[in-house]
Amino acid sequence: MSHEPLMLEGKPVVAEIYANLSSRIEALTAQGITPCLATILVGDDPASATYVRMKGNACKKLGMESRRIHLPADTTTKQLIDTIAKLNQDTAVHGILLQHPVPAQIDERAAFDAIDSAKDVDGVTSLGFGRMSYNVPAYASCTPEAILSVLDHYQIDIEGKHAVVIGRSAILGKPVSFLLLNRNATVTICHSKTKDLAEHVGHADIVVAAVGRPKFVQGSWLKPGAVVLDAGYNEGNIGDADFESCLDKVKAITPVPGGIGPVTIAKLLQHTVEAAEASV
Amino acid sequence: MSHEPLMLEGKPVVAEIYANLSSRIEALTAQGITPCLATILVGDDPASATYVRMKGNACKKLGMESRRIHLPADTTTKQLIDTIAKLNQDTAVHGILLQHPVPAQIDERAAFDAIDSAKDVDGVTSLGFGRMSYNVPAYASCTPEAILSVLDHYQIDIEGKHAVVIGRSAILGKPVSFLLLNRNATVTICHSKTKDLAEHVGHADIVVAAVGRPKFVQGSWLKPGAVVLDAGYNEGNIGDADFESCLDKVKAITPVPGGIGPVTIAKLLQHTVEAAEASV
Repeated sequence: MSHEPLMLEGKPVVAEIYANLSSRIEALTAQGITPCLATILVGDDPASATYVRMKGNACKKLGMESRRIHLPADTTTKQLIDTIAKLNQDTAVHGILLQHPVPAQIDERAAFDAIDSAKDVDGVTSLGFGRMSYNVPAYASCTPEAILSVLDHYQIDIEGKHAVVIGRSAILGKPVSFLLLNRNATVTICHSKTKDLAEHVGHADIVVAAVGRPKFVQGSWLKPGAVVLDAGYNEGNIGDADFESCLDKVKAITPVPGGIGPVTIAKLLQHTVEAAEASV
Repeated sequence: MSHEPLMLEGKPVVAEIYANLSSRIEALTAQGITPCLATILVGDDPASATYVRMKGNACKKLGMESRRIHLPADTTTKQLIDTIAKLNQDTAVHGILLQHPVPAQIDERAAFDAIDSAKDVDGVTSLGFGRMSYNVPAYASCTPEAILSVLDHYQIDIEGKHAVVIGRSAILGKPVSFLLLNRNATVTICHSKTKDLAEHVGHADIVVAAVGRPKFVQGSWLKPGAVVLDAGYNEGNIGDADFESCLDKVKAITPVPGGIGPVTIAKLLQHTVEAAEASV
């Protein structure tokens, strides 16, 4: 490219979201309501523990409450669902986050779907996904929504563009595909069984890397002037895109770290504030 | 093409489904349970009245019950939802079909979502869509599932193929995209805002025409050897594909009428039998 690619930094997007939330949190607090996010961590995965801590700290910074629930690694599906049921009933809790992934003995989908849709601020329930897909009000999954917020903040057009999403997970690839579709992108969903992945990616105006493989997406695959949104979070803070090789081809790209990740947390807090407002 | 394209007739697919259902309906009847589909028609649209009648007749032919509810054209959303709530409670009713489209004053999505997921045999609720998308057991929308049944019956591979879906409606384009995705196709979803539609279609191994415009998909757009599934049902029994021009290019194509349509009804009855079995 003859010009420097645009860095899609998350920081100004987060600042914009938090500026909007501050006054809303104040207004709620004046009514005696402090927005409260309950986080559930099952087991002792250090990365998961870090993510949960980051979310709790973000709440604190904004004057919100967080309630951390830590369950042992041998928790059963039933015990986890019972814990969720209590939080569903608790009127002081506005949002519930179950940190993904949970230990293998737990039916994660059943646990996610036990979360009351009014408190599903992380956007993980089947019902929430269906509603979001059908344009019924619902909390969308946070990382997909963060991707859209980054595109919007940097005024990157979505309508009529060809978006190629690499990955089809329940909380990332699938929902981001439908968020982009509902914003009038033409969307191609690729995954591990896709043949000629590089060719598919080569047609894209917008590439969403959501595959969970470090430095997977190569610059050589890209159409010149493509926009790359990297939602990867691999060990060592490495994204799903091979950043260096992509730089030569892209119009804009998210850095990792500092791109989508921080916006994801801001979306979680935004949803929790919205849930608190809806509870009034 | 040097050979005649394969005609993907619905008739043998329906025969296969009905052969399987007959013994199951007999077994239920022996237990004193007759599978019962309640159909709701709002207003006097002649095409809708025909569709509802066809579904009732299909039930009768298989020894199932149908209960036809006909509401006036000026029915409100609340009245319709009240009617659905009564059917949700009625243990003699196993499946509920709300004929689409409803008059403009009704919130169709709210009405669909009022159907108990256990009786959502037409696969129209947000919850059912979310569950289907996430591979949680649910009744998929009938026309999308009919498309998959036709592909399976004629042993047309889905895994690793590139499927292009034209249309993104709640009960057709969106669900068929996810059914194909969950069967490991690479899926592109096109719609009214798609640029270069012909080019997208030209990459497809499998084309699903779900756009509601007669003779819209042109043979000249197709890759030689493509498979065309035409889910169109336009006035005068005309499909969404320009059948004549497609014939020169395709490996296989559904006729209209006689392709997807009859299989859709068979899927509805299959779901109703499953719902009756689940109620035992």
